[in-house]
Amino acid sequence: MAGNTFGQVFTVTTFGESHGVALGCVIDGCPPGLPLSEADIQPELDRRKPGTNRHVTQRREADCVEILSGVFEGKTTGTPIGLLIRNTDQRSKDYSDIAQSFRPGHADYTYWHKYGIRDYRGGGRSSARETAARVAAGAIAKKWLREHFNTEIIAHVTQIGEKSIAFESYTYINDNPFFVANHSQIEELEQYMDSIRKACDSIGAKLHITARHVPVGLGEPVFDRLDADIAHAMMSINAVKGIEIGAGFDSICQKGSEHGDELTPDGFLSNNAGGILGGISSGQDIHINLAIKPTSSIATPRHSIDIHGKPVILATHGRHDPCVGLRAAPIAEAMLALVLMDHALRQRAQNTDIRVETPEIARHHPIAPNT
Amino acid sequence: MAGNTFGQVFTVTTFGESHGVALGCVIDGCPPGLPLSEADIQPELDRRKPGTNRHVTQRREADCVEILSGVFEGKTTGTPIGLLIRNTDQRSKDYSDIAQSFRPGHADYTYWHKYGIRDYRGGGRSSARETAARVAAGAIAKKWLREHFNTEIIAHVTQIGEKSIAFESYTYINDNPFFVANHSQIEELEQYMDSIRKACDSIGAKLHITARHVPVGLGEPVFDRLDADIAHAMMSINAVKGIEIGAGFDSICQKGSEHGDELTPDGFLSNNAGGILGGISSGQDIHINLAIKPTSSIATPRHSIDIHGKPVILATHGRHDPCVGLRAAPIAEAMLALVLMDHALRQRAQNTDIRVETPEIARHHPIAPNT
Amino acid sequence: MAGNTFGQVFTVTTFGESHGVALGCVIDGCPPGLPLSEADIQPELDRRKPGTNRHVTQRREADCVEILSGVFEGKTTGTPIGLLIRNTDQRSKDYSDIAQSFRPGHADYTYWHKYGIRDYRGGGRSSARETAARVAAGAIAKKWLREHFNTEIIAHVTQIGEKSIAFESYTYINDNPFFVANHSQIEELEQYMDSIRKACDSIGAKLHITARHVPVGLGEPVFDRLDADIAHAMMSINAVKGIEIGAGFDSICQKGSEHGDELTPDGFLSNNAGGILGGISSGQDIHINLAIKPTSSIATPRHSIDIHGKPVILATHGRHDPCVGLRAAPIAEAMLALVLMDHALRQRAQNTDIRVETPEIARHHPIAPNT
Amino acid sequence: MAGNTFGQVFTVTTFGESHGVALGCVIDGCPPGLPLSEADIQPELDRRKPGTNRHVTQRREADCVEILSGVFEGKTTGTPIGLLIRNTDQRSKDYSDIAQSFRPGHADYTYWHKYGIRDYRGGGRSSARETAARVAAGAIAKKWLREHFNTEIIAHVTQIGEKSIAFESYTYINDNPFFVANHSQIEELEQYMDSIRKACDSIGAKLHITARHVPVGLGEPVFDRLDADIAHAMMSINAVKGIEIGAGFDSICQKGSEHGDELTPDGFLSNNAGGILGGISSGQDIHINLAIKPTSSIATPRHSIDIHGKPVILATHGRHDPCVGLRAAPIAEAMLALVLMDHALRQRAQNTDIRVETPEIARHHPIAPNT
Repeated sequence: MAGNTFGQVFTVTTFGESHGVALGCVIDGCPPGLPLSEADIQPELDRRKPGTNRHVTQRREADCVEILSGVFEGKTTGTPIGLLIRNTDQRSKDYSDIAQSFRPGHADYTYWHKYGIRDYRGGGRSSARETAARVAAGAIAKKWLREHFNTEIIAHVTQIGEKSIAFESYTYINDNPFFVANHSQIEELEQYMDSIRKACDSIGAKLHITARHVPVGLGEPVFDRLDADIAHAMMSINAVKGIEIGAGFDSICQKGSEHGDELTPDGFLSNNAGGILGGISSGQDIHINLAIKPTSSIATPRHSIDIHGKPVILATHGRHDPCVGLRAAPIAEAMLALVLMDHALRQRAQNTDIRVETPEIARHHPIAPNT
Repeated sequence: MAGNTFGQVFTVTTFGESHGVALGCVIDGCPPGLPLSEADIQPELDRRKPGTNRHVTQRREADCVEILSGVFEGKTTGTPIGLLIRNTDQRSKDYSDIAQSFRPGHADYTYWHKYGIRDYRGGGRSSARETAARVAAGAIAKKWLREHFNTEIIAHVTQIGEKSIAFESYTYINDNPFFVANHSQIEELEQYMDSIRKACDSIGAKLHITARHVPVGLGEPVFDRLDADIAHAMMSINAVKGIEIGAGFDSICQKGSEHGDELTPDGFLSNNAGGILGGISSGQDIHINLAIKPTSSIATPRHSIDIHGKPVILATHGRHDPCVGLRAAPIAEAMLALVLMDHALRQRAQNTDIRVETPEIARHHPIAPNT
Repeated sequence: MAGNTFGQVFTVTTFGESHGVALGCVIDGCPPGLPLSEADIQPELDRRKPGTNRHVTQRREADCVEILSGVFEGKTTGTPIGLLIRNTDQRSKDYSDIAQSFRPGHADYTYWHKYGIRDYRGGGRSSARETAARVAAGAIAKKWLREHFNTEIIAHVTQIGEKSIAFESYTYINDNPFFVANHSQIEELEQYMDSIRKACDSIGAKLHITARHVPVGLGEPVFDRLDADIAHAMMSINAVKGIEIGAGFDSICQKGSEHGDELTPDGFLSNNAGGILGGISSGQDIHINLAIKPTSSIATPRHSIDIHGKPVILATHGRHDPCVGLRAAPIAEAMLALVLMDHALRQRAQNTDIRVETPEIARHHPIAPNT
Repeated sequence: MAGNTFGQVFTVTTFGESHGVALGCVIDGCPPGLPLSEADIQPELDRRKPGTNRHVTQRREADCVEILSGVFEGKTTGTPIGLLIRNTDQRSKDYSDIAQSFRPGHADYTYWHKYGIRDYRGGGRSSARETAARVAAGAIAKKWLREHFNTEIIAHVTQIGEKSIAFESYTYINDNPFFVANHSQIEELEQYMDSIRKACDSIGAKLHITARHVPVGLGEPVFDRLDADIAHAMMSINAVKGIEIGAGFDSICQKGSEHGDELTPDGFLSNNAGGILGGISSGQDIHINLAIKPTSSIATPRHSIDIHGKPVILATHGRHDPCVGLRAAPIAEAMLALVLMDHALRQRAQNTDIRVETPEIARHHPIAPNT
């Protein structure tokens, strides 16, 4: 299977470049009968879209989604759902410098070597703009999961550069331009981001994603473990360089007597596992951390080479996010939704007959979300 | 596709449980003409096999591999390669306590809920014993990669619990029971591991994997990026809770002017990318770190429940690795080999025609292996 | 993988319903560097499009294709190619009778039972209108195959009902509304089709497809044999009820000494195999026959039931092809092109290294195309 | 996905050559809880195995199956089922003539060109011996289908060469060496087959396969239609050159008013569809016909070339079936079982929620099985 399809049963195939005609995707395998209209998808796109404040790229895109198929009289029919988002603000600027040279830290170099041709306008297919289609698809998965299991998926930024951000409340996340669950550090973050931008530089970030009310039993060992598919999904997002599930890298220093989450009839006593045991969801909350590198397109001049191997000094001007991690929150939510939905369908394919009559233990142990 | 097949073109399908009749796999899509015999595979299995020293499980398995098909007159034929490893040291001990209860931190609980039935003998399919088949398959991929690109893949343990292990030389890795690239700390580590074992406990570890001489151009964006497939592969290994590529979580605090690896006609000036840009290999060395949790089966009594939801106190006796991270080195190497080989074949499927005439820049920048 | 994607390396994912907003597809895995514009695709769509003469449905659709992505400066980039065809002639007629009842021989009944919901407007997803997207994708595969191997793919109708059509010349196929390789029987066929239409009935047809200049070695036994994938592709076309490769059903009465095509240094002496031996292309011409059933939507009143199980008498009015087999010619060509292209890429994935130095035997043995 | 795996959710990956060490397969995605032992599989293998009478190859193989994994305490666990069949009667005869030359009508020529290497012993992977693994896997699918839906799958030979065989009763099929549903023509067929064998020749055959009690709703349009996947499965069997569903090639001469099966509250009035409408099972019996070519390995001398392109005269001695169609009956049953089971699981993946409350119409219309 070519690399632009994600999922096995609930599949999403995306297309589109940063400065091409349009972006979009085809979603196949969606269960029929789900009420769906553009109004279910647009709000997620609006959360991700550029140009909404000074801390993100100033490109102005309506990111207006059109459902092309798969919905009849307001409900999904089980046939493929085509989604289309037209690009509207592709500037006719001169990309000739980037066209001939490779930005340090950017996919320019590898796309050129892999394909021998490269749509250099705005990064082409390697642009994070591609993720709009994922967010649109994820909105459908989110809705289905919510309706079936009351599943909630929430991402928030927990660190920007050296700035750790205290968790205050999930309710704040959509009220600030940084996707932080915090109210009191906003001014500090604004000043920090302003300083980065003025320095013609960019900065990394850390993202936490959680899912609540995940049914037990999702994941297909040994290779398509739920955590393995989550890692695949997250690492497929532009700029992600690291991922942790549950205790993550802290597990290295833990002893077994500390790490292994004890069970009682009232529930688990901890959640070092991050909601996944042996590659299968346990019903506890899923906890994920992502490391997101700084944007590679910066206005600071840097050493590079051109396509002929000659040395050049390259500074990338144009409209770029100084912290690509900020807008990653809705993208990471979408990818997690795609994984969970696909696995929910895969699980019932093989195991519909299963009805384990074990008394359900209470699952939700209060774990600090920043863990 | 069900969850026990890995890869798209070079595929590995594994089977077998810890205490079943046998383990094995079918490798499909292997290019014909590769010289192959059991002697190419057995050394890798020997590196992974249990019982070789006091710091790993004392189960004694020869892990003797038999090639069942796909090889004729000493060469692969392009048809599926069947590999078989019979289990020989499945003890007829009484598993009745584990059969009815869930070990904290173990897959017992989730397998039970997912499938409604569970082969509790030695963890069944959830046992790390399953990885023997991966190592066997990986040996074939390693050989092909070496013959085609001179690719080398090396894993070593860089931390056990709180003990950081200094990198001295790759040559030491196979000379000690800890898979460390170190000569001078062995005694310290032996004492540390002895103390863990005596305390009836277990401990986590950190693993570094590198690949050298990786051809440029491997990876299939946007979903099957090389790093995404590596993350999938690594997180599918038992006990892995975190993964980093290149600078990993250090990227969070980096600025773009620091993270983005500059290029010169003589090569890259750094390798924060870890050899992958935009999801495609750059030709630089690939660098990966893994966080591996402590073994969940420990002899320390812990709270748990049985399959009826009743509270129990559970201590797991038997033969278990006190640090499952140690033997993960050959497994992680195997998984990386599977990913690279699959992507090498995928790359030439789509892009055989491509011959980019850019002067090749020197790629190997000396990067400290523990980064 | 959900059912609306075809292919393994060169993949096509289609979407769209007969009376929905649009049809289209995403083509992934296309090699980069192929010159491509709408002008390469539109002529194939024009061959298939409805309303061009009185013997096909009178629906008027421009079937105008728009390339949304994957092409830059006139060449494919290796990234997904999005294609869009907007519907323009969806009549606002009353479908209420069909909405509640099942047309005999139609997918109405099974879609209803499978999905519990059905877009009854013009057959929804089960309409042959869906094949426009396949034809568009096939045009790209055809072009690539032609440029790489000089492969030609030609389909023509060899029988309509009881009327066998003599093969005269391939040059006639596009000059008549019946896709027949015949000049002298056109008037006879026009009268025959007029009589069918006037009788408010429909009729079956037989289609022959050939491919010339197919490289030797395509096909992935044991399951993805080239003939197996062709059978899959052809039987996925609406209304196809039978398929033959080479001698097909005539093989039943053949002896081995008659069927097995002898080889000489100058080439094969016959082509009972139809160009495929052991599931792998031999380099000879591929020969395929299809049986296509009569259109199920006819104006003759017939017995049926409604969705409540009550008996009804149903006559389907509206715009339908009296012989759906006629327009199947470009569709079958497209599907064969998709199979061959996918297998060409799969072949080089595994076997790029292979250079068999056997003297090539001349391959093209003159076989009557109607065999 | 490489070509030796069949299915999407219930997958079968086979390996093994005619004269290699062993044959076998891995079955992934099997629902847990199915009672299973070798005794469920062996009878199907015994039906297919060679050497049981003078009309088939005289090779003696016990075809004794061993379950290697996936079953615990007599039930499937949901983990992969490994099956192993060791070869025991590989004669050490001299294959040197075949090793250097290509048998007319055989896969020799194409395997050589595809892979550049060929296990010529007994045909290697291209031998029909490979199908033993399919039959073993199919036995599991058959059992599950029978337990869930009471599905029955029956294949029988309806024609050998010019000899049409009258349908008398299904009960006769396993009582004769020809897999015919006939009692009175056995002697005639024995004489006919004796004459073929004495003439050092072989002969084609026609096979009919039916499935009863197939649930409505199986099939994943537009590409993975049930009939398309059946066609794929059947054409993947060695020597199959044609396939029909329902009326098949007779559809060509049918009018819509004749072909379309009318519905009444008491059931369908005919079954030209062969149990599949729009690519989805209708609940009626599925009817399939296959054309099977004569064995290509015959003792009659024929023209061919060697691997250097030189002309040779080749007569194949050794142990071969004079009518490969005979033993195809259990193989075709197995392949149909694999398709139906995979689609049953795929159906419930997407559509578990669906409960159509339409009154079920009686489905089983008596259709002559030879249609």
